[in-house]
Parts: sequence; structure tokens; C-alpha cells
Amino acid sequence: MSYRELAIGFDADDTLWHNETIFEHVHVRYRTLLSRFHDADTVDRTLFATEMRNLERYGYGVKGFMLSAIETAIELSGGQIGADEIRQIIHLGQEMLAHPVELLEGVGEVIAHLAASHRLLLITKGDLRDQERKLSKSGLAAHFSHVEIVSEKDPLTYERILRRHGLIAERFLMIGNSLKSDILPVLALGGAAGHLPYHLTWGAERVDTMPVAAGRFFQLGTVREVPDLVCRLTSR
Amino acid sequence: MSYRELAIGFDADDTLWHNETIFEHVHVRYRTLLSRFHDADTVDRTLFATEMRNLERYGYGVKGFMLSAIETAIELSGGQIGADEIRQIIHLGQEMLAHPVELLEGVGEVIAHLAASHRLLLITKGDLRDQERKLSKSGLAAHFSHVEIVSEKDPLTYERILRRHGLIAERFLMIGNSLKSDILPVLALGGAAGHLPYHLTWGAERVDTMPVAAGRFFQLGTVREVPDLVCRLTSR
Repeated sequence: MSYRELAIGFDADDTLWHNETIFEHVHVRYRTLLSRFHDADTVDRTLFATEMRNLERYGYGVKGFMLSAIETAIELSGGQIGADEIRQIIHLGQEMLAHPVELLEGVGEVIAHLAASHRLLLITKGDLRDQERKLSKSGLAAHFSHVEIVSEKDPLTYERILRRHGLIAERFLMIGNSLKSDILPVLALGGAAGHLPYHLTWGAERVDTMPVAAGRFFQLGTVREVPDLVCRLTSR
Repeated sequence: MSYRELAIGFDADDTLWHNETIFEHVHVRYRTLLSRFHDADTVDRTLFATEMRNLERYGYGVKGFMLSAIETAIELSGGQIGADEIRQIIHLGQEMLAHPVELLEGVGEVIAHLAASHRLLLITKGDLRDQERKLSKSGLAAHFSHVEIVSEKDPLTYERILRRHGLIAERFLMIGNSLKSDILPVLALGGAAGHLPYHLTWGAERVDTMPVAAGRFFQLGTVREVPDLVCRLTSR
């Protein structure tokens, strides 16, 4: 296997910029809003169950979260929640959609550096408009040859993306924080993957086992380790 | 200008399958739900204003519509709307997301016929997951070489799509019901466009003037006229 002319895919949320921290702040305020009806654990558990039930119809992203949060508030309050409180939930979501994009430490430099010598792809789930907005605000857009906003990140999705851009898995490295969405499907196709854990992981992205793929799976500590990984892969 | 090896783009909602009729039914039920607070005209006008105010943050699609409909209901009721009524709005939206896909008359045959000799692209706005679901349910997916779900249909979007697939505007024909989204931007790039009006047009897609582009703009009555148009374009 040769890694010369390696193309590199990057996940966006919690890989390039902070995202789950913003959701976490919103969760705190959401729990407070519902605290007169239920304890924090029940609120969290019920909201997550609603999100999972709605995932197929809404897909990923803030708008689906807002709708699930409203539905959960009605359910948990036994229909007692007021219109003003629902308005507050809508405002929470709208704040998320207007939130500044905060790059993770080192991301700006590393992406600019890698873009000088490799084709970079941004591959992300979520709401189309919201992800485009974040990429635009990030200042990173010009470094990516291709941007793919997809509804699910499974092997079939990656296979289509690689084919569309004339790439092969054996010369593709994916970098991301989610083992489920960024790492396992790419390893399954025969590609290489670097895992960059974020300090928070949304329940729906959690997996129990670490991937086993000798020489193709790499556990990283920070994005600053990516250029060295790329150098090792392309020179062997 | 030669139209040999013409690639053909199709819009989806209200071009291949019914969409605005489904929204229209939902609007009727929404007006009824709010009739104890305001007359139908006020409800329609306020909902549309909310949708336009939220368009930049939500983008197009059913989820954004649902959120704007909830926000409007709270506003129009002066906060008096009940949780159960908001739940009904959520259910209206969820019904839309589960609605069967009904092809317009002739679409199945025409698309299959054209796909045998031309590259077909599906180019649509809306929620990622919802548009994928509709395409899958439509039974038409296999006929399209490429599917592009985009957040806006302006000249830049079409330019990117053409470039991405190695196409040039001079050999591209776009078919759709929206002058604003399907016809004018493609004509601006130098492509050809066939307008297939639907009997309902959402306010945000309305334009006042008909395009002027001699030999490149075609007013059509039904999708069954597309093969003949393609034949004329490719043989001249």
C-alpha cells in the first residue's frame, strides 16, 4: 500500500471547531427550564430518547434538536409547558445557529500547512445551511478542495465520496473525533483513520470497542500530530 | 453552440413530484388551528413573514417550516397557544416528512427514457435527509448520475455543480417549476432552461418577469414535452 498522493478527509464538528460544548451549555439551560417538572437525569434521558426516535425523519443538526427539545418539553410537562417557555427553547436553538465558530487549538495552522501539499476534503453531517455557515465563518473554506455535507457517515457514504472525486480508500486518510462516523467506516473500506477524541461525545456517536486495523488506525492526541502522521504514511 | 452530449438537470419538488400541494393541505389545517386567534389571511401573511425572517438561519425544508409555524403560533396567539396545539403542529410536520411521494403525470416514463441517452442530474433544495428520502421513495434514483442537494440555487451553486461534474453551461439544460431557482440562474450562466410551471408556487419562489434568452429559454406545458425539446436542441 502506498500513501503517496494521500487525500485527507476531515470531520468538522468537534474535530475542527467546538460543537458539543455549545450543545452542553444549551442542555444546562434546557434542564433548568424543565426543572419544575423533572430532575436533570430524566430530562436528559427523555430528550435523548426523543432525538433517537426522530433521527430517521429529522437527520442530524440543530433544527432537529430544536424540534425534539420542544416535543420533549411538552411530553415531560404533561402538556403544562407554557408558550413562553417553548419560545425560549426556540431562542436557545437560534442562538446555537448564530454562535461564533471557535477553532480547536492548532487547527488553523495545521489545515493551512496540509492544504499546501495534499487534497483536503471536509466531510460532515448536520443541517446543510448550518454547516455551510460554520465553514464560512471558520475561515478554513479555501483550504478544502471538496466539501461534502451528508445525511449519514457510513461506509456507503464514504465509498460514494471517494468515487465521486476519483480517490481510492488505500490513499485516503480520515481524521475525526467520532469512532462511529469518522473512523470505523473508513477502516472498513480499507482506508486509514486518525482518531482525535474530543472531551465530550454525544450519546449517539458512542461506541464501546476500539478499532483494530494494524497500520491503518492511529490514536492521536491533538491535531498538531496529523502532519507527522501524514509524513510517516506518505514516506513508507 | 452545440447541444450534443447534453446533460439535463431536473429540479425535484413540484417538478418530478408533488410538494406544494402537501404544504397547501398543511396550511389549511394550520389556519384552522389558529382560527380562534386570527383570520386566515393574517395567519398566512404572518407565517410567511416568519419563514422569510428565518430563511437565512434555517434554510429550506420541512423542519424550518415546522419551527417557523410554532414561532408564528406563539406570536399570533399572544402566548395563549396551548402545548397540545403545538404538538399538533409538530405532528403536521412529521406527517409531511412521512408523506408518500406522488410523481407528476408522465415523469416516470420521461425520466427513464431520457436516462437511456443523457446524463441526468437531480438538483434540489431542502432538508438533506428529507430530499434523500423522497428520491428513494420516488423509484427514480437509479436514473440520475448525480444528486445535488443544495442550500440555495443561485448561479454560483450551478457553476460549482457543473464544474464538479466536468460539464459546461453551453451543454446543460435545466428543467424545473421555479423561474427563480431553476431557470434564471442557469440562463445567467449561458445554459438552456425549460420551465414547467406547477399550479401552485410558494411565495418565496415567485418572480414577476419572464426570462428573455432567445433560443435558450423554453416554456413547457408538461414533462412529456421535454424529450422533444432535447431532440431539437441536440440536433441543431
